[in-house]
Amino acid sequence: MKIGFIGTGIMGTPMAGHLADKGHEVYAYNRSSVPDSLKKKGISVVSSCKEAAEKAELVIIMVPDTPHVEEVLFGKNGVAEGIQKGSIVVDMSSISPVETKVFAARINDLGCSYLDAPVSGGQIGAENASLTIMVGGDPNAFDKVLPVFQLMGQNITRVGGNGDGQTCKVANQIIVALTIEAVGEALVFASKAGADPAKVRQALMGGFASSKILEVHGERMINRTFDPGFRINLHQKDLNLALSNARALQISLPNTATAQELFNAVAAQGDSGLDHSAMVLALEKLASHPVND
Amino acid sequence: MKIGFIGTGIMGTPMAGHLADKGHEVYAYNRSSVPDSLKKKGISVVSSCKEAAEKAELVIIMVPDTPHVEEVLFGKNGVAEGIQKGSIVVDMSSISPVETKVFAARINDLGCSYLDAPVSGGQIGAENASLTIMVGGDPNAFDKVLPVFQLMGQNITRVGGNGDGQTCKVANQIIVALTIEAVGEALVFASKAGADPAKVRQALMGGFASSKILEVHGERMINRTFDPGFRINLHQKDLNLALSNARALQISLPNTATAQELFNAVAAQGDSGLDHSAMVLALEKLASHPVND
Repeated sequence: MKIGFIGTGIMGTPMAGHLADKGHEVYAYNRSSVPDSLKKKGISVVSSCKEAAEKAELVIIMVPDTPHVEEVLFGKNGVAEGIQKGSIVVDMSSISPVETKVFAARINDLGCSYLDAPVSGGQIGAENASLTIMVGGDPNAFDKVLPVFQLMGQNITRVGGNGDGQTCKVANQIIVALTIEAVGEALVFASKAGADPAKVRQALMGGFASSKILEVHGERMINRTFDPGFRINLHQKDLNLALSNARALQISLPNTATAQELFNAVAAQGDSGLDHSAMVLALEKLASHPVND
Repeated sequence: MKIGFIGTGIMGTPMAGHLADKGHEVYAYNRSSVPDSLKKKGISVVSSCKEAAEKAELVIIMVPDTPHVEEVLFGKNGVAEGIQKGSIVVDMSSISPVETKVFAARINDLGCSYLDAPVSGGQIGAENASLTIMVGGDPNAFDKVLPVFQLMGQNITRVGGNGDGQTCKVANQIIVALTIEAVGEALVFASKAGADPAKVRQALMGGFASSKILEVHGERMINRTFDPGFRINLHQKDLNLALSNARALQISLPNTATAQELFNAVAAQGDSGLDHSAMVLALEKLASHPVND
């Protein structure tokens, strides 16, 4: 298949690489230069998003945030200027669900399909082609793109219509942040009360308090292994999506707001490059007590 | 073994029953009357906590909260007045970790051992002898009582010294409440953004957002099955322990405080008898949007 791939950063580079490895004809565009590693795989570099759209029947976008997707799609020399009727746009960036519905409608008006397909699993998931992919959009378009998704990920779900993929990703990031916060409060409490947090974590595994986060991030908090993993500054971006969309949707997310403030407090100490489990540092500062003390 | 059992309520009755079934000589005291079902099992009813302590080498306490344990132990005709040197007191109630250390020291001063051994698993766990038991106290006393614990529970951990069992239970209740809150915020967001919360829950299971709470309580929120389960008014008591002990320990638990307020908001509508997953009703009220809408 002829595939335009826009955004060859930390995530996009291995993802585009998998598509080329399996024989797809990939036309890559990046704001800065496309890595040589991709050129060696036979990927063609194009000079604009418009050109990527002209040459391809499927255009994949993997860029940082909502304004970047808008620029790629509808900016000067953007996808909308080059796309052919019947083509499919797949946005795999993590962006606003509300804006996504607007973007999808504008692409539909050009006689094209749109899928929002954000991922979780990070750089390692991208490299190992083991990403979780949460998809919103038309079922026929989903069926056509599924074999391409399967070259990049393993757990691929069509959640619903346009925007629902992004909504699912935001829901995921809310739960992950708030469960990290929950484990942080519990371990700070346990430690300050004089218990061994490692034994408390062990006793809680298997019961109703058990979670992937207690297992993985609880252990990180106890062992002080805060090298990422998933960086606080990326999770701040995702919680900003949650909070700004919540305001637009007229709902209140009180603990998401607090979790964002705790991330902000860690970032204020210059530590926004640490793994998101380091949110516990802000709780410890409130308590003046590290969990491993 | 001669066992005093103080507190034969919803939890204590099946627990004491298991001990009698396995041939232990049980002396039961309850503030109101001891159920006939226990008398039929050959359990002797005594007229005070003091008498239960006089007749037994092991005294088990299962009462609602910290002041009740204090009254049972050190009130008029309490355990401390009747207990013999070398006996063991086991408090299986869920009470304050800080106060527990004081109670344990006073019992130790009488030449006796003390174990704090709160449980999770609720009425069903008590009836099926499948409780999780989190124990704090002396290892020798723990080893002596372990065969008795095994008649009431399955997952039995000595977490550390006195108070650490109660600390572990509080940590458990913090994580459970905050994970319910996290799943609630995520599902309200997803629903209000127009996605199907059941499909979102499905897509998130297996990833980093996965937890026992997403599985069980997430399903309850979607299907509106709020019959308990574990009642909000009991979880309010546990979060009050968390917050009052946090204040005593000089630590800050911001999301636990919010979760308690959300429970309070549900209780304000007269719904404190519902399952704790009904915390989502307060989030929905903030959003004016039920997750199954």
